[in-house]
Amino acid sequence: KVLWTVLVTMLGYSSSLPVGEDALCTAEELAKYRIIFTGKWSQTAFPKQYPLYRPPAQWSSLLGVTHSSDYNMWKKNEYASNGVRDFAEKGEAWALMKEIEEAGEKIQSVHGIFSAPAISSGTGQTSTELEAHPRHPLVSFVVRIVPSPDWFVGIDSLNLCEGNHWTDEVSVDLFPYDAGTDSGFTFSSPNFATIPQDTVTEITCSSPSHPANSFYYPKLKMLPPIAQVTMVKLKKSQLGLSAPFINLPAKSNEVIDSVS
Amino acid sequence: KVLWTVLVTMLGYSSSLPVGEDALCTAEELAKYRIIFTGKWSQTAFPKQYPLYRPPAQWSSLLGVTHSSDYNMWKKNEYASNGVRDFAEKGEAWALMKEIEEAGEKIQSVHGIFSAPAISSGTGQTSTELEAHPRHPLVSFVVRIVPSPDWFVGIDSLNLCEGNHWTDEVSVDLFPYDAGTDSGFTFSSPNFATIPQDTVTEITCSSPSHPANSFYYPKLKMLPPIAQVTMVKLKKSQLGLSAPFINLPAKSNEVIDSVS
Repeated sequence: KVLWTVLVTMLGYSSSLPVGEDALCTAEELAKYRIIFTGKWSQTAFPKQYPLYRPPAQWSSLLGVTHSSDYNMWKKNEYASNGVRDFAEKGEAWALMKEIEEAGEKIQSVHGIFSAPAISSGTGQTSTELEAHPRHPLVSFVVRIVPSPDWFVGIDSLNLCEGNHWTDEVSVDLFPYDAGTDSGFTFSSPNFATIPQDTVTEITCSSPSHPANSFYYPKLKMLPPIAQVTMVKLKKSQLGLSAPFINLPAKSNEVIDSVS
Repeated sequence: KVLWTVLVTMLGYSSSLPVGEDALCTAEELAKYRIIFTGKWSQTAFPKQYPLYRPPAQWSSLLGVTHSSDYNMWKKNEYASNGVRDFAEKGEAWALMKEIEEAGEKIQSVHGIFSAPAISSGTGQTSTELEAHPRHPLVSFVVRIVPSPDWFVGIDSLNLCEGNHWTDEVSVDLFPYDAGTDSGFTFSSPNFATIPQDTVTEITCSSPSHPANSFYYPKLKMLPPIAQVTMVKLKKSQLGLSAPFINLPAKSNEVIDSVS
């Protein structure tokens, strides 16, 4: 199933290549992008069991990596690594950072790592810069859904390069995933390890098919996006000294209020 | 009071310059550092009211900036900005990121911003890279203490450059600060805005001088460090492709266990 051709909203003229096809990137230089993550987890959009207290709905830090097709941070229908498990269950990034480091050292499959600060509510924004390399043009990241058993949103291996051209801008709607490591059914379920571990699965309005599940909305055809990510290529003139923050809106709330 | 001459443990041969003296950095190039933040907030070291549940003791994302002496992210005995207030009270980074961006655009006082993922327990580590510039050789950052009313640890304007030399390695013990915006007395106090706002003050074992305060240990001369930060200059050969993570220990727990 070629996920990106469905989900990727192309704002530039180029189209990103589907994962798995060994698309050769012949761009000659590195490319820098600003990545902006927008939480859309509002009580209006997701009224069921919406977490209001201790903790209220929020997002963990964002942890991401630019890499080649020899590395996968996570993949639908495959088993999550220990690092992804720690991150999805607890927001603990260290083991995942070590996995990425080792992939970079051993098989040269990683260009760089990036992170953005956590968001203290379900709706809000965070941002950072990332750098992609012609031999490492894929972007992956994860953000933990807080509170949750082991649920996260993210991107797996989005290709930013086509031929000799770096994509100018790309936006992707994000939907919840279950890391397959904790059998909790609702946002605030107590910890209950899944043994044996299950694979990473997308959570939809009908799956898991059980009324107790926090995302079970049997009347919906599909869940609204719970988050969105936008990556914008930075021009050379926007790089370096005193220009780390091009194009950020004035207040995250202004953006949020206009969403939904 | 020249804070850094007391707190800074020099591991290299150079010494960092105190804040405020207009030390000219004559280094010719940018310098990249790995910054490693280590939480030392254990129940053993800080038994009083140690937060075990909802949420347990942990650290927010780290948000930092490299800058010139024309910018201050925060400063002891001065009022916290709205951005620092949002971050210290809620871990919400957006307003602070905007303040930094504006300082970069308007008065060219900022080189770059950096962040590192949150730590999901009181003891643990996180890390990222930062870049300093000869005209922006100062490092500042904040990490929120979670849970807490408006307490944080951080560094204000640590100079990484002396003359034409970038400091090879520097470690600093960190102690808790009160952002002066919430009058809560204990880790889990309900929100209670401080009106009028107070200045940023260091929290010690005797100040605030009240037995209810979470850090009040009248028998101690001083609190043990609640965290530590180390910055290590990266060599040219360690920069770029596939070398984002030099010198990270294998497991954060191994380091933590040997501490204290």
